[in-house]
This record gives sequence, C-alpha cells and structure tokens, in this order.
Amino acid sequence: MKILEAALARIKPVDPALLAAAQAKLDNKTKPLGSLGRLEEFGRRIAAISNSMKPDLSKKVIYTFAGDHGVVEEGVSAFPKEVTPQMVFNFLNGGAGVNVLARHAGAEVRVVDMGVDFDFGALPGLIDRKIARGTKNLAKEPAMTRDEAVAALEAGITIALDARSEGVAILGTGDMGIGNTTPSSAIIAAFSGISVRELTHRGTGINDAALEKKIRAIEQGLAVNRPDPADPIDVLAKVGGFEIAGIAGLVLGAAAAGIPVVIDGFISTAGALIASELHPNVKEYIFAAHKSVEIGHTFMLERMNAEPILDLQLRLGEGTGAALAMTLIEAGAKVLCEMASFEEAGVSEQNT
Amino acid sequence: MKILEAALARIKPVDPALLAAAQAKLDNKTKPLGSLGRLEEFGRRIAAISNSMKPDLSKKVIYTFAGDHGVVEEGVSAFPKEVTPQMVFNFLNGGAGVNVLARHAGAEVRVVDMGVDFDFGALPGLIDRKIARGTKNLAKEPAMTRDEAVAALEAGITIALDARSEGVAILGTGDMGIGNTTPSSAIIAAFSGISVRELTHRGTGINDAALEKKIRAIEQGLAVNRPDPADPIDVLAKVGGFEIAGIAGLVLGAAAAGIPVVIDGFISTAGALIASELHPNVKEYIFAAHKSVEIGHTFMLERMNAEPILDLQLRLGEGTGAALAMTLIEAGAKVLCEMASFEEAGVSEQNT
Repeated sequence: MKILEAALARIKPVDPALLAAAQAKLDNKTKPLGSLGRLEEFGRRIAAISNSMKPDLSKKVIYTFAGDHGVVEEGVSAFPKEVTPQMVFNFLNGGAGVNVLARHAGAEVRVVDMGVDFDFGALPGLIDRKIARGTKNLAKEPAMTRDEAVAALEAGITIALDARSEGVAILGTGDMGIGNTTPSSAIIAAFSGISVRELTHRGTGINDAALEKKIRAIEQGLAVNRPDPADPIDVLAKVGGFEIAGIAGLVLGAAAAGIPVVIDGFISTAGALIASELHPNVKEYIFAAHKSVEIGHTFMLERMNAEPILDLQLRLGEGTGAALAMTLIEAGAKVLCEMASFEEAGVSEQNT
Repeated sequence: MKILEAALARIKPVDPALLAAAQAKLDNKTKPLGSLGRLEEFGRRIAAISNSMKPDLSKKVIYTFAGDHGVVEEGVSAFPKEVTPQMVFNFLNGGAGVNVLARHAGAEVRVVDMGVDFDFGALPGLIDRKIARGTKNLAKEPAMTRDEAVAALEAGITIALDARSEGVAILGTGDMGIGNTTPSSAIIAAFSGISVRELTHRGTGINDAALEKKIRAIEQGLAVNRPDPADPIDVLAKVGGFEIAGIAGLVLGAAAAGIPVVIDGFISTAGALIASELHPNVKEYIFAAHKSVEIGHTFMLERMNAEPILDLQLRLGEGTGAALAMTLIEAGAKVLCEMASFEEAGVSEQNT
C-alpha cells in the first residue's frame, strides 16, 4: 500500500505556465496561428509534462500487460484461453501486430506477465509480475482480492518509475488477455451506471449467442459483487483483471513520475479510468490513442475528458493503437523543436 | 495535349483479385478478423495498386507545388503575397512544417515552382516548371488560358512518371500559394453548384471583412467566367491555380503509372478533384490524408468517395497532412508484410 500511497501523493497538475510558454513558441513558427491543430496540442502538452521546451521523444516504450480471466468459462470470447500465452510467445518473437507497429514507430515493446494461466518459467524478455494464474470468474465471485489488486497496481507503478529512471520519454500501454473486454465493460458499467446491454460489444468478434452470455456474465458479476463506484480499488478487485490493474498502475506511475502516457484502446482505457478515478490529475498525463470500435470505450473517454487521436476502426489491443498514436504525438513534439520561426526563416507575419 | 491524353488512356481500375489476395493474407495474421480496421484497408490497397503482396514503401516523396494568385488583390488572404516565395526558401532550407513532418515520416520533400511571382533563377533543389508569374485575377477574368492549364497538368503528370521510373513507391501532394483557398473553394462550387457562402471558410485565418471579400470574389469569378462543370480543364483554367493544376497532374500521373498517391488537405483535394473528374478510376489510387478544417473540403471528399484518414484540425497545407498519413499507410503495408500468421506463430484460430 505504501508504493500506491506515495505515487498518489506525488501526482501534481501540469504547470499552466509551461503550457503557455510552449504555445507561445508554437505561435512564432512559420505557419498561420493554430494551423497545425492537434499537433500543437501534442507539442504543448509534451513540453509541459516533460518540463522541456525541446522535448525529445526518441526513447519510447510500450508495455503490453498480459493476464487471464476466470470469466472465460462463461463462453464470453471467440478465442480459447490458451491464446493468451501463445500470444505472449508471439510478442517475444516480434511477430504480433504491436511488434510491427512499435518497430514502425521506433518504440520498444516490453511484455509483462501480470497473471497468465501458464508457467513460463524464466523466459528471456518476459517481465514476471504474476499475481496469480488468472482471475477468478467475476460472474460468480470477486475477480481478485483487494490485496491482489493493490499488488498489481503497485507492480505497474514500479514499472513506470523504473522507466523514468532509465530515461524513457513516453510510455504506451497495451493488453493481452482472452476475455478481457468483459471486465472492461463491467468496469465502465460499475462507474457510470449505464446499462450493461448498452455498453457491451462483440470484443474480438463473437456471435449473438456469445454476446448474450457476455451481457449476462457482466450483469451477474455486478449483482453478485456490488462493486462500489466511489472506491476504484473495489471496482478493480471485484470486476477487473490483472493486466487492467497493471495498466492502471503504469498510468498512475507515469503521472507520479511526470512522463506522458499513451493509452491504447478499450482495455487500456479501463485501466486508465481506474487510475483517473483514484486521482483526478492523472488525466493531464494521458493521451488517448484512438476511438475503439467497442461501444463502452466512448463512455470511458467522455468520463475522462479525453479526445481520441485516431479513428481507424481498430479493435486489436496489444498497444497497436498506442504505437500509431505515438508517431503523431512525436510529430507534434518535433514541430515545437524543429520548425523555423518567422524571424529565422525571414517570412512575413500574418496581418491581424 | 499528347501527354495528358496518353496518361488518361493508361488509367485502369485496381485489380479486385489483387485486393482479395491481400485481404486473404491479412485474414491469416495473428489477430481477430478485421481487427486492424483501416490499416487493413491501407495494406490491401497498397498491395493491389503496387501489384505486390510484399509492398515496400520505404521510398516516399512529397511534392509541394507552389504558385501565386492574381485574386490576392481582392484582399482574400491574411498573408501578403511575398510569403509564397519566402516559404519556398523555407522549404528548401528544411524549416517548414512539411519538412519537419516529412523527415519524421521518412519522406523526401521536393518543391515545384508552378507559377510563383518571383524570379528564383537557377536555385538548387527547386524544380522549375513555372508556367507564368502567378495567375490572373479570377474575380475578373480566367485565371489562366486553357493551354496553360494543360501545360501545368502535363508538368505534374511528367513528374509522377519520372518518380515511377526512379522507383518511388508512394507519392504525396502539397501546396503553397498565398490566396489558394479562394480558387479551391471556387472549384468545388463550380462542380457541385453549392452556394459559395456555404462552402467558403477563413483559410489561413482571415477576419469577417476579408471573408466577405473572399465570398464576393468567388461569386464574381463564377459569374464572369462561367466555368463548365462537365469540362474539368475549363474549371481549372477559369477559377483554378497553377499549383492546383500541378497537383491534379501528379494525381493523374500516379494513377496512370500505378503508384498510390496521398493527397493532403483542401487545396490538394481541389487538384485531386480535377483529376478524378477527368477520369473516374483515379479515385482508386488516392488516399485522403485528413479532414481539413475548411468546410468545402468535406464536399470535395464526398464527391470523390474518399474517407479521410486523420482528423487533427489541420489547415496548414504544404503536404503536412500527407506526411502524417503516410506513416499510417506505411504501417498498414508493414502489417501485411511483417505480421506472423497463425501457423507461423503457433496460435490457435478464432471459433466461428
């Protein structure tokens, strides 16, 4: 509990004076005022969060958190549970979607085992933070204990703090866990009170029968466990997942350490939502990579006041959207650093 | 006229069998079917246009076409006309927005003088295709003669064909020309018949008085010149611009040569619209980089059936949006080339 409390105590609002200084620098670049739209927002926020008017985002890391879900026994997913460890091997071999897109973005992928139901032994490249071999079935009982939830959050926090010490300039989140759109939908349902049917979607592509099973599992889970929306750790423990907790911890740690963090899609945003319910200033450190096809995602983003960067109909997870968005965020930082000013370029300024 | 006719004769539809083969390859990658959304569309289309199931987009070039506009004397822009040549120097020195974003995307920027009202002499790095030192004032007379319009189109076509010979894998378009949102608005008004007031926006950021001048200039231009919407070259000549013609030619040449072309924002789309009105299959080679803040842009994209890739509130032009979109299109191509299949990775497939 000490690591979590210390992290929460360290989270500060981003300095408005730094945001204004960065915008003033952008306003003197050779372009009409504001004409680079959201790239200017990215540049300004990265500068303020990093406390540098020449932010360098070359060191980028995406953490892909993996975990299994007891609720899979309810028939909520189109894929069998063994796909979670199979995909961990795929990540470590560099063949998954997130590997391809992270390489393209110049980011490193690091895989964290938060709770996969498989014994990897000492596998080179895999970060072992396993809390348990999968959660319990949230449709019948709490997914994890409160102590497990705190331990998983603290694992994520520690990873972010270590990244900061290592000089990582921007973090990305990703997830792998067969069945994990089910706890993610349950989390937003618990916080918002919106009906489960309204915010539950087909995940990796389930049919009508499986969708009904998924809705029933979530409804049962909320009825049996009664998560308290005023207590985000209670929500996480009762209807969350280990990889979601790791992501929530990483986001908290990023805010505590003052590093920007790019959250991927639906599952990552469930984690970021837990973090932002724990501390309101967390939102200021978050970049929402994209608008997922999952319906519940929009409700999460609205609750966090986050405007997604991309809308490419993605629904893969893993950190794929985070990798793509990182290239745009870094572009915004480079506009701030590399573009010539009117004076430097000898260009006449705008009439006002 | 021969170069234009030859290009139009060469434009073929993209082969549906190649599109299907690329999608089949994507469907066997380790991900739920269709879960990479528009990245899969990009990968599939790039493969089919390039006639390769392993398309390599490492050689990317953005052509930024520059020209001046006689209509600036009507007070339609917030910037003085001398900014056009000043920005050409900025491009050549690598300090403009498009330079920063193209470097980030791994693309080269090449600047083409189509009709800047400045004598650059033999300036290293500048491609000289100057038709005249700026257009005439379209509010009073045709912006250019029909022969000039054809010559400008053919200059663009030749650039695309030369790029193809050089092994460039994907082209991007960009524009520089103080006042050029005025002819762009006039072009979409001429084709669509929508009222000028409805589709005219503030360009680089003009005030209310200048906006009224701009609307009046376009209305006058359409009334005086009576461009024939069934004759795209007539529209281009009477209310277009030299850089817009160069872009239209580049897009036609790309379609003729079988190279994908990424069109930037409002001005580039005006050029692409001229091209796609000249030959309907041109659309199949086009990737629309982003949704511009300019209102008229949406009408253009709808007319071309093009779905913009990004929506970042950009309104700079130069090719900045094209550079950003290229990184996403290349990501789609890499998914096709680099991701592991279910068999390669030993991952279990989806239940159906």
